[in-house]
Amino acid sequence: MTSASLADHSPTPRLSIDVVIYDGVDELDVVGPLEVFRRAAGRGASLRAALVTRTPQPTVLGAHGIGMLADAVFEPGRADVVVVPGGGWAARAATGAWAQARQGDWPALLRAAASTTGLLAGVCTGTMLLARAGLIGTRRATTHHAVLTELAATGATVLTDRVVDDGDLVTCGGVTSGIDLALWLVEREFGGSLADDVAAGMAHTRTRPTTAD
Amino acid sequence: MTSASLADHSPTPRLSIDVVIYDGVDELDVVGPLEVFRRAAGRGASLRAALVTRTPQPTVLGAHGIGMLADAVFEPGRADVVVVPGGGWAARAATGAWAQARQGDWPALLRAAASTTGLLAGVCTGTMLLARAGLIGTRRATTHHAVLTELAATGATVLTDRVVDDGDLVTCGGVTSGIDLALWLVEREFGGSLADDVAAGMAHTRTRPTTAD
Repeated sequence: MTSASLADHSPTPRLSIDVVIYDGVDELDVVGPLEVFRRAAGRGASLRAALVTRTPQPTVLGAHGIGMLADAVFEPGRADVVVVPGGGWAARAATGAWAQARQGDWPALLRAAASTTGLLAGVCTGTMLLARAGLIGTRRATTHHAVLTELAATGATVLTDRVVDDGDLVTCGGVTSGIDLALWLVEREFGGSLADDVAAGMAHTRTRPTTAD
Repeated sequence: MTSASLADHSPTPRLSIDVVIYDGVDELDVVGPLEVFRRAAGRGASLRAALVTRTPQPTVLGAHGIGMLADAVFEPGRADVVVVPGGGWAARAATGAWAQARQGDWPALLRAAASTTGLLAGVCTGTMLLARAGLIGTRRATTHHAVLTELAATGATVLTDRVVDDGDLVTCGGVTSGIDLALWLVEREFGGSLADDVAAGMAHTRTRPTTAD
């Protein structure tokens, strides 16, 4: 069993998902959604989910010192869904989402990808990266509760729901809410029954967007 | 910033925690608790938490294809707390907790560690590994809901609580309940206020053991 075999669950997956990683990323922001997607694939969803870096980088060191192996280098236009996790924003950490926004390379890449990507998802302060890339504007979105004011200052229409669905822009609150965001994307693409099954397998009680009810 | 600097948060941490990893381990079983411990350390808890392998192995490939870097090789007697995650038990996966139990090396090591370890914790089907190692016997414990019957068959007194505290044996249900187990250990060792702060930072609504109320 290799990472690649799991990343490419079927020869021609219907849905391709890239989860963006970078040094200082919050590990649960990454692993929560990715495990949801891979579990959905294991239960028959035709999807591929991969951890992608901006430049070739075999190993990424997260905000809490957990080293994770990357699957591929990000290519704008390759994935149907791009998930952007956060990490280290509120603390202005030397590595993390804040550092990435200041450096500017990820925002530029995400802008380049936006026109060819079906859906952008911001997890935790990954939403701030999307906002700084100019990809949220005045749309409805949320982020980690510590930086809601900062998100509002970018012009976004800020909601405090755990998951906010604004069509081709889906965002969520802090850290563990990324699990609910991913389950919601599974529900949108493959149905609520599959999403409920995945959640049950993870002993997770779901929170869906209020707009879904 | 290196993994080692985060694994050893203070020069002489009061509490040393090893999180056992092996190929086929469920990634959230690992990352959930570890991120809780590292966040607690970041908020002042004097603890060290490390990912440990049975033999030298720089990279571990989890059940869902996520590669994780190990911090150290397990040494019985080194840690005050040993956390055993699960993965792949119900599916009898070729790698994972079931494979480890059949192979027998981890059970033997955990038995060797038990007499010098202050607390054993089983996450998800990691509890089954502890049971097969003879470290649960008739004590109160829980595991992933898919294998509760199998746990009962080992002689354990099975509860269906999300987290079960039986003194120096603490266990929990499936996958995401490992976050609650880790928060409970933080509460036991460093107080409920810190555990609540960590949970809030992760946007996680806690479930404590019923015996704690």
